[in-house]
Order: sequence, then C-alpha cells, then structure tokens
Amino acid sequence: MAGNSFGQIFRITTYGESHGIGIGVIIDGCPAGLEILEHDIQMELNRRKPGQSDIVSPRKEMDKCQILSGVHNGFSMGSPIHIFVPNDDARPEEYSDIANVFRPSHADFTYFSKYGVQGVSGGGRSSARETIARVAGGAVAKALLKRHNIKMAAYVSQVGKIKIPPDTKIDTSLIENNSVRCPDQKTAEEMIQYINHLKENGDSTGGVISCVIENCPIGLGEPVFDKLHADLGKAMLSINAVKAFELGSGFAGVEMKGSEHNDVFITEGQEVLTKTNYSGGIQGGITNGMPILFRVGFKPVSTISKPQDTIDHDGKNAIVQAKGRHDPCVVPRAVPIVEAMAALVLADHLLRAKISKL
Amino acid sequence: MAGNSFGQIFRITTYGESHGIGIGVIIDGCPAGLEILEHDIQMELNRRKPGQSDIVSPRKEMDKCQILSGVHNGFSMGSPIHIFVPNDDARPEEYSDIANVFRPSHADFTYFSKYGVQGVSGGGRSSARETIARVAGGAVAKALLKRHNIKMAAYVSQVGKIKIPPDTKIDTSLIENNSVRCPDQKTAEEMIQYINHLKENGDSTGGVISCVIENCPIGLGEPVFDKLHADLGKAMLSINAVKAFELGSGFAGVEMKGSEHNDVFITEGQEVLTKTNYSGGIQGGITNGMPILFRVGFKPVSTISKPQDTIDHDGKNAIVQAKGRHDPCVVPRAVPIVEAMAALVLADHLLRAKISKL
Amino acid sequence: MAGNSFGQIFRITTYGESHGIGIGVIIDGCPAGLEILEHDIQMELNRRKPGQSDIVSPRKEMDKCQILSGVHNGFSMGSPIHIFVPNDDARPEEYSDIANVFRPSHADFTYFSKYGVQGVSGGGRSSARETIARVAGGAVAKALLKRHNIKMAAYVSQVGKIKIPPDTKIDTSLIENNSVRCPDQKTAEEMIQYINHLKENGDSTGGVISCVIENCPIGLGEPVFDKLHADLGKAMLSINAVKAFELGSGFAGVEMKGSEHNDVFITEGQEVLTKTNYSGGIQGGITNGMPILFRVGFKPVSTISKPQDTIDHDGKNAIVQAKGRHDPCVVPRAVPIVEAMAALVLADHLLRAKISKL
Amino acid sequence: MAGNSFGQIFRITTYGESHGIGIGVIIDGCPAGLEILEHDIQMELNRRKPGQSDIVSPRKEMDKCQILSGVHNGFSMGSPIHIFVPNDDARPEEYSDIANVFRPSHADFTYFSKYGVQGVSGGGRSSARETIARVAGGAVAKALLKRHNIKMAAYVSQVGKIKIPPDTKIDTSLIENNSVRCPDQKTAEEMIQYINHLKENGDSTGGVISCVIENCPIGLGEPVFDKLHADLGKAMLSINAVKAFELGSGFAGVEMKGSEHNDVFITEGQEVLTKTNYSGGIQGGITNGMPILFRVGFKPVSTISKPQDTIDHDGKNAIVQAKGRHDPCVVPRAVPIVEAMAALVLADHLLRAKISKL
Repeated sequence: MAGNSFGQIFRITTYGESHGIGIGVIIDGCPAGLEILEHDIQMELNRRKPGQSDIVSPRKEMDKCQILSGVHNGFSMGSPIHIFVPNDDARPEEYSDIANVFRPSHADFTYFSKYGVQGVSGGGRSSARETIARVAGGAVAKALLKRHNIKMAAYVSQVGKIKIPPDTKIDTSLIENNSVRCPDQKTAEEMIQYINHLKENGDSTGGVISCVIENCPIGLGEPVFDKLHADLGKAMLSINAVKAFELGSGFAGVEMKGSEHNDVFITEGQEVLTKTNYSGGIQGGITNGMPILFRVGFKPVSTISKPQDTIDHDGKNAIVQAKGRHDPCVVPRAVPIVEAMAALVLADHLLRAKISKL
Repeated sequence: MAGNSFGQIFRITTYGESHGIGIGVIIDGCPAGLEILEHDIQMELNRRKPGQSDIVSPRKEMDKCQILSGVHNGFSMGSPIHIFVPNDDARPEEYSDIANVFRPSHADFTYFSKYGVQGVSGGGRSSARETIARVAGGAVAKALLKRHNIKMAAYVSQVGKIKIPPDTKIDTSLIENNSVRCPDQKTAEEMIQYINHLKENGDSTGGVISCVIENCPIGLGEPVFDKLHADLGKAMLSINAVKAFELGSGFAGVEMKGSEHNDVFITEGQEVLTKTNYSGGIQGGITNGMPILFRVGFKPVSTISKPQDTIDHDGKNAIVQAKGRHDPCVVPRAVPIVEAMAALVLADHLLRAKISKL
Repeated sequence: MAGNSFGQIFRITTYGESHGIGIGVIIDGCPAGLEILEHDIQMELNRRKPGQSDIVSPRKEMDKCQILSGVHNGFSMGSPIHIFVPNDDARPEEYSDIANVFRPSHADFTYFSKYGVQGVSGGGRSSARETIARVAGGAVAKALLKRHNIKMAAYVSQVGKIKIPPDTKIDTSLIENNSVRCPDQKTAEEMIQYINHLKENGDSTGGVISCVIENCPIGLGEPVFDKLHADLGKAMLSINAVKAFELGSGFAGVEMKGSEHNDVFITEGQEVLTKTNYSGGIQGGITNGMPILFRVGFKPVSTISKPQDTIDHDGKNAIVQAKGRHDPCVVPRAVPIVEAMAALVLADHLLRAKISKL
Repeated sequence: MAGNSFGQIFRITTYGESHGIGIGVIIDGCPAGLEILEHDIQMELNRRKPGQSDIVSPRKEMDKCQILSGVHNGFSMGSPIHIFVPNDDARPEEYSDIANVFRPSHADFTYFSKYGVQGVSGGGRSSARETIARVAGGAVAKALLKRHNIKMAAYVSQVGKIKIPPDTKIDTSLIENNSVRCPDQKTAEEMIQYINHLKENGDSTGGVISCVIENCPIGLGEPVFDKLHADLGKAMLSINAVKAFELGSGFAGVEMKGSEHNDVFITEGQEVLTKTNYSGGIQGGITNGMPILFRVGFKPVSTISKPQDTIDHDGKNAIVQAKGRHDPCVVPRAVPIVEAMAALVLADHLLRAKISKL
C-alpha cells in the first residue's frame, strides 16, 4: 500500500533514505539457478553514480554493492536476494539551512503534508539516491533477460531543445562513448556544451531518454490493465523528474490517419513482422516481436544554485539557494535507471507469460 | 497476474468478451455507507456508448447496467459491488470473414500467439466494449470523489492536427455542448468536419484528451513506485489505443530551464499555492493541492473501411476490409473512459492516504 | 483489502448476498486451453446444495450455474471466467422477525458494528450461500488438478462425539454412498441417527471433515509465509463455522517424541518415500510427494429452532427462535466446500511452482 | 509469489539464510508518527534467542538488531523500516557431514526438489533463524497495538503430554517467571523436568502455545476469505514446526450441541458482551470485543542427537545424527514468535478496518 514494491512475480521492495545508513533492495521471486554476479550489479551502479564526468554532480559516492542473501556460489537460490549499498560522503550539513523551507518543485511540501514529519535532510525517500535500489534490482532482472537473449539500450535523444536529428540511424554501441550518453556524436557535443553553460549559470534543463528493446519474445504483457506498455509507462513515470511517456508513434501518431499508421503484417521466412513499427512492438498490450520503442521525458532538475523565492514551514516568505553538488541535467545518469525499470517490467512479464496457457 | 484487476484498496476486477453474454465489473473495497445510484452509473455509460451522434459508430447498444450485489437501498454495504451490462445488438457475422486473418495494428496476432486460441469474434477482451466495465466502476469511484468535493473534467483538445489554440481559457461546462466533447466551439466544429471527412473516406484519426482535476486533497499518492502520476499514467496507457501520457508541462517542459519551470510556493490566506503549475498538481508523486493536469494521446483507430494488406493464420497474404460499424475517431467516446480511470486511481489513493499517518 | 479474493495466480473473487439476486465467482489467472464443462461445475454444486437428503436443510434451491465469460467451445481462453448462480426460493420473510436482533454466535453483531449497516436478510455475505462461489471456482481448479492426475477426497470423519474408529482403513470410493458422506458405513448410520435426533429436538452439532490428496507433485508450496499447509489452513478456516485445522499428526503429534514422529526417508525404485507420514505430505511448507492429510473442525450450527436469549439493536433483551429451514449438522454439505478450497490452493501453487526455478 | 511477504497494508518482507550474513525484515505500510525504539525490538529478540536457559539450545547468538531505515529520532517516517540482525556464532562445519543427506522431517528433501539447489548449510530459509525477522517485525506491530491498548499474551500450555490442568485460572503476569514460559508453576516444573530428560536422551518433544488477546476493538477482520482467524491460522501455521491451530472451542467444540455452544449476547452498561466465549472473540471472521483465544500445536523438534536412518542425494541409505546445538522442545522460545505473528495480523487488520466504512 505504501508503494515501495514493484512487480507481481519478479518483485522488488526498496528501502533507505538519502542521508541515512544506506539504500537497499529485496528481490523476491527470482527463479533459482540464475547466475548473478556482484560485478555486473556494480557495473550498472557505476553508470548511475555521480562523479563520472564533468557534466554530472561531482559528489564522490562509492555506491559499493553487497549481496547479503539469496545468492550462493554465484547463483540464485530461490530465496529473497538482498542487495545493500551503504551511504557515504553524506554531508547533511549542506541541507541544514534548507531544513525549514519548502524547495520549489521538490517533494518537501508534499511529504511534510502527507506524513506530518520532515524526512531526514537531503530529501529522504524522494532523493534520487533511491534509484540506486532500482538499478541494483534491475541488474538482476537484466541477468534474466540475458538468458532470453533480449537486448536493451537506452540513450539520451534530447537535452533542452537539442535533439538528435530526425531519421538519424541510431548505433547503440556508441552510447557510452560520450559523457551525455547520446549515440550521435555531433549532437552529444552540443548537449555537453549546453549543460556546461547551464552549470556555470547555476541553472538546469530537462531531456528525453529513448529506449529500444530487441529480440523480445512474442506474447509478453497482459491484455487489460497490465498491458506491457502500461506497466512500462508506470515504471518510467515513477522515476524522479519524469513527466511524460510515449510508446512507438506516441503523441506524433495522434496526427496520422489510420491508413498510414496501421502496421501491415508481412512474413519473412517463418517469422511474422510488420512493415512499419508505429505500434512500438506492442499491440493490444502484448509484444508482437518487433522492437519495443519508447521515450521518456524528464523535467529540468529542480535543484539550482540560483536564489529562488519560496516559503518556510510557517508560511513566511523565504529565499532558497542550493549549496549541494547537483546535476544541471539528470538524463545522462538516468539512462541506466530507465534500463533498470524496463528490465524489471520485462522480467516480471517473462515469468507471468509462463502461466498464460497450459 | 492475468491483469484483470486494477487498484489496491478500491479495486475493480472486470470480465466479459465483446460478443459474449455481457460485460461486468466487481468493485471490492468500496467503504460501506456510500450512496450509489444506478441512474448515475447509467449516465456515464450513456456518454460512452455508440450511436450518440453522427461522428461515432452507429451501433445501437443499450449498455443498460444492473447492480447485482453490494448495494442495498441505494447505499454500499461494504461487500463487493457487481455491475453487469448485457451485450445486445451483437452481430458476430460481421466478423466471420476476418476470423482467419490478423487485422493490422489490432490484437488478433498477439492474442493468438499468447493464448493459442482466437478469442470470440469482435476481439474478445481486446474490444473497446471492455471499457464499459471501467466506466461502470469509475462511476462508483466518482461517487466517492463527490463526497470529497473533488471535481474532474476531461475533454478533447486535439483531433488529428486540429488543436485548441494555445492559451485558450477552458470552460469545462461547455464540454458536453458538442458531439466531439471539445469545450472550444470553433475548434469543435473543425474537428467534427474533419471526422466526417474521414468517415466518408473510410479512414480514421487519433486525438488527445486533456483532463483537469480540481480540489484534490493534499497528500494523495505514494512517494516511490506508486506516485500518483505513475498510477494515472498506467491507468491511461491501459485504455485501448492510448500511446502517450504526460503530466503538467510534459514533453514541452523538457525544453525549459529549471529557473523557469520551478513552481514557486506562495500563500493565499492559510492556503499554500504555487505561482505556476508546471508540476501539474503533483510533486514527488504526491498531490500539492493545485489542479492535476494531464494529457492522453490516442492513436488513429485501427479499424478502417479501406482495404488493407495483411496475412492469415497460415502466414499467407490476405486482404482485410472492415464491415463493422466503427468510429473514425475514438476520442469523443473516450472522454468518460479517461475520467473513469482517473476516478478509480483517485478513489484508491484517497483510501490509501487514510493510513499514511497515525 | 476487503477480502473477497483468494489465491495469488489462480485467483478467485466472489460476490453476492444470500437473499439478493445471485452469487458468483470470477476466476482470473486460469491458463488458456483448459477444458471446462458446465456439467462438472453443476455436479459439484449439486453436492453442496440443500435438499439432497433427509439430514440436511430441506430448502429447494436449484443452484443452477451459468458460465458468463472466459470459456469458448468448452475451453478456457485465458480471460476471466465468470460463473453465476441465481438465487431462487429466497424467503426473506422468514428473516423479517429477526431483522432487529443479534442471533447468538452469528455474524449479525459484528457486521452491524463493522459496517454500520445490517446486510440484507438471511446474513448477506456471512450466509453459507456464499460458499456456492467457492464450490464453482473450486470446480475449475479441480479441472486443472485432473490434468496433473492429482486425486482429492474429503469425507466426514466425526459428527458430535461419533468418530470413525481409529485405524479404520478408509475407502474413499464409499464416501458418496450415504447421506452423511462418511466412508465407514456403520459409523455413518450412527451419525445419521444422531443428526435426526438433533433435528427433532431443534438442536445442532459440529463435526470433522478429513481430506486426503494423493499424487501431488513434489515441490508445491513456498517456504516461508506461504507454506502449503498455511495456505490450506487459511482456506479451511475461512469456511463458515470452521474453528480448527490440523495437518498430518496435528495436535496428537504434540505428545510424541521426535524419534517416533520423524518420517524416515526410503526409496522405492526411483521414488523417494517416507516410512510414516506424520508430516501429512508437507515438509518445510513444501509437498514431499506423500499423501497430503488434513482435518477440519466445524462448530455446531448456530441456527437452531430452540428459543434463545439475546439482545436487539438497542441492547434490550430479546428472544430469538429460527424459523428458517436449516441444517442440524453442516459437515455433510461442507465436504465439497472443503474439496473446493483445497483445490483452489493446489491450483494456485501448481502455477506458482512453475516459476520457482529456471 | 515466492511467499516472503506477509500482510496487506502493514506488510513485512523477510530475507536472509541461517548461516549467511544476517537476517532482516522490511516493514512497509507502518503509518508515520509511531514511536519505535530499538530497545523494545531487542527485548523481543532476546526472548526468542537461544542460550536463555538450560532447556533451550546453548548456542550463543547475540541477535543484535539494527534499524537501518524508516525511523528518525525514534519515530516512524512513513517510509519502509528495515531491521537487520547479523548472524554470528555460525558454525557451518557442524553441518558439513549432513550436506549430502536428507534429514528426516526436515525441509532438505523438499527444498532440493523444488529449487534444484541445496541451500547453504543449516537449512537456509527453512531454519528457525528466519523467525528472527518475524519477531523484529512483530515488535513494530506491537508498538501499534500498544497505542490501541490491545493486550496480548502467549504461553506454553502443553509439553508432550503434560498440560496445564483444565479450568486453571491463567495469570499471564507469571508467564516469564520460568524458563518454559508456562504460567502455572507446578506444571512448568514438570515440563522442565521432562525436557531435561529428553535432552539427556538426545530426543525431543512437541507442545502447545495458547494465546489470549484482550481489549481488541470490535470490527477487525474481513468477512469472507480474510476472516481474522483465517489470517491468524495462516500466520501460525507458517511458523516452523506448527501442525495445528484452533480458535476458541476448536476441535473440542465439535462435540458440543448448538444450544450449548452458542454465545448468548448480554449487555454490561453500554457494552455488549457474550456470556460464554466459545467463539474465541471472533464471529463471522470479525472481532466481537471478547478476548481472542487460540491454540497452536507444535510437532516434536526434528533435529535429535539419536542416530536415524535416511537416504542421501543419490538415494543411498545413510545414517544421520545431529551434532548441532539444538532445542529438545521448541515451544518456550516460540512464545514470542506466536505473539509476533499475531501482532502482525492484528496491526494489518487495524489498518484495514480504517477503510471499511465512510
């Protein structure tokens, strides 16, 4: 009910506050016999952590994971898998002077209203550190997808107004070649320049992450409320700062005619394909074997160094100015988070699909 | 697991195939003592049903609801509420010649692959008739919201490329004044003209529904996975033909700077407000008391009268041409469905919020 | 939350009040491709219904089931299966003079306190008619068990103080040979005589139902909270009038020593067996392949024709005397209910076991 | 699905293997603002841990709890509460020579069959160490019950054949006065003597724990599947070694007549009581305000020092003889476990009852 669990069969439960002792995830429902390596989980966490490059927060967090249960000799045992990441380099003093004000477009006001208590400094559960647990859980989900040869890649396709030009052919092997995680090198350079400009001005911007999932089995997703893209949408919208989600043709598809938008079935050998893929790989909520394509819109980061008007807990006018070491644009570090959440949705539906028919 | 239920505390389970005996919904978790009138449910169903106007499907479906349990003398008893809507005017013969082909961008292929059985004619659970159960369940949710003085209105803001002009002041009392459910009369007329044009050409188009929810209590929504807008997003994306969802500033907000996008807190008497509402009424997943604003993108209707290439169950080339009496644009009839799903999400979170603090 | 659903994957939701329009069950999560015959469901309902013999309630209820969704040409489609049983021969007038009093050991007082409303006459959801939905859902579960060759038989082993003598060899093929459903004919006759005696005196008694499940696959049940016998226990204790449950050696095993009680493993060909079966076929919450054995204790029926002291809604003293046509002993009719609930638990765990390992 | 969570609203998820790094529990759904003291949790863990007295296992486990999240300055914040208990004094070498055999009446065989992997030594998740997580979670539940003035006490009422004499007046304040946790001192002494006798002989016995819960609000429990005693029954049956559960009159009530067994309603001032309490405080699955009374039957401990016949993983005959430091009778240490599980059920239903009516 309190919403700290995600998934039906392959199910994670997360805990931990930003500036508390640590962050963790319990993965329940992972089948026994899956190879799970701490190293693979750590690699994903490293992609998420701050301090990777000039354009992200310079905080030095180790984000070192520990598997505390559920894995024996590198294989899952069928029991709950607990991955713990201790907090370090916490500097709660950076938050002391904002303890009594509501930061604009942050969750301070809503948390305070809902729970009657201010969380620990740094945002408590609303901090982006919470996503560590998602990435760790997602790494285990990825291990399951790997066994099914499912391939997933997310990348930054837009920062502010800078977008990869339409009809650019995406080569997902280039994503990690630059610090902004945009596979189009020219666009990436413009993005980095823009982010650095904002950083100098104490401001921030939003961005879009695109995700492509290939080689997904036909038949994943449930037809009514748990349509695969409905679960993907919820997964993405639950990530901090996400405001928008679209599958396949998305909002642009609205303007098309049915005769243009319909994806015509064709065969290629034994395989059934569609000529176009406006459906984004999902029809009636269920995968059709074509690549799953979706886009996720992130708002500009709320924490900025510029002074801002606000009010305090007593409703009095106040000024807030962040001193923390924050990101001017969240999307480069959000790429592994988007992948993690997508992997969790797919892992869950892979297991759910096992019981659809006799 | 099979995804026919929605909600955690205020929870619906739906059943019924398009051309079977009927469609129904069980609402479990509705508190005892709520006034529930068959008339109110019927009013919502009437807004959804075909044959209301020239621009929608001319099928004559009565969609007459019956409350079979859970309500006594007009009030909920705390037991499960069952609302049943018999099917009538079913003409399965209209589907006989498509029984063996996969209609483009329909769920025929994915269902067949997933279950190994073709549903009954007319799409089975993937038919839009399934949404009858959502509207009936949503009508009960609306009764609960009404007790909390929450006001909700959805309307058509775009059909094809025709949009309500930016900065138009929306008067939600005008929504039902035209058959397309667009509160801007001039835009509505253009939309109707365009839909009629498509109808004559046997084609279809998509559209956008906007929704505004006012007077919502502060504190609804759970902070991590069950953020209110994540649940709203899932709810919307689970509706047939929906491909996109955005909250507040949505994809457009991506291009803004943090210093522009942040919603500054102000006070008005005892009340805390924000100067702007790019957040769309939700911060950190939790309502802040400002209006909730979201937009839902619908793809063009897949069923068109134009002949289309496809394949049959044996993978052989085939031609499909719809003879059914279908909508050229789904959004006017989808307005009550969007409202129903939003009401279900809010009713659930209203009850969940009761247990957030002592 | 309101507790009208049971099961995780193979999941039923029930609705309907005793003297309302009817009783029904939605089965969600039944795999596609299972043969489901209305006739088989009806057979189970016939075993439950009143009026079967002299020793049960003489009410004439048809309890005629209708499959309203989810089954096509005799096979499940993967969509929710709805089975409806209309109420008939309802005589609410029989309850009119008890509308304002709390019947001793009935749920009148607790319902009234919990919901603030009196259910419809005849007990609403607390009536034993609610178990119709369980038996109908259980019949579908039995169809799934049948495909796995699992054999289940419940029988009456005790009525009042009359028990099948210890060490009697049970022949489950004899259960349906007498109206009390006791496979030991001599004991059955004593039971019937005792029940008839109570009936004449307007009194009632309790009883015990024993259940044996053979040929169950090894590995069903989850090791911690959802141990198979914990789920069986909950299933049984949720049946009206049940007060006690024991697995295998049960309360009697308490008095044994470990060296006597431990079930020694042996092999018989390739098969692993245990010499004794005090474990009742379940070890660590998981089936070991030996027969599952459990016993369920039912209290004496609360509704008796003798006048009883009680109080009314205003707390004033009152006398209550049942005029309805009730059972002096519930266990003969409860046999199919026990089987249905056991079948639901097993069907659910059969599907859950599919995802335990890769 | 994998059954490591318990509860609907007040919900725990547990993890950890017996001889791994530690055992823990996540409590999700605890309302914000509840006072939670590490000291109170530790007190409960101390009641459970080995080495307390002569009659229990002499293992020296510290079982020192750490609250890792969800609590700030001694009060719950509404976020998930994580309590961790590191393992220490693990001696896996004690288990090395049983790694390849199936211990009689243990979960070795069923786990091996279900997961295809042997857990870590000492039983993995099937070890009684798993109950640490239950006791820690239950301690938080008890804090919630305390705010509602609910009083709970469990005690040992039977060990082997030694029982508290019928009609003994129970003074729950005496429970902790002896090492067997039996409030009747004379019976306690006999029990201790018997346990010591078994210990010397390398054997074990079973026992019964009785529980009484006073001052429980009227209206807890859901009427159909989630009857309060059904959830209590499941909770108890999920504890290691439990084989039997009964509420109120239980199996003994089976032999009574309705006219004897019915609990007649009376009033005492404004309060509604019943003359007798064969119902055990629950009617129709819902509390009626009378004390909740139930009994739980534990089988003899499976681990004994006597040599026993068994088979190994290859099906060959083998002898097993425990060298671990185990309990000859589990019930004295199981008293806090029974209380913890009962507290979890009640805390959950206290919160669920908040949403039963408007």
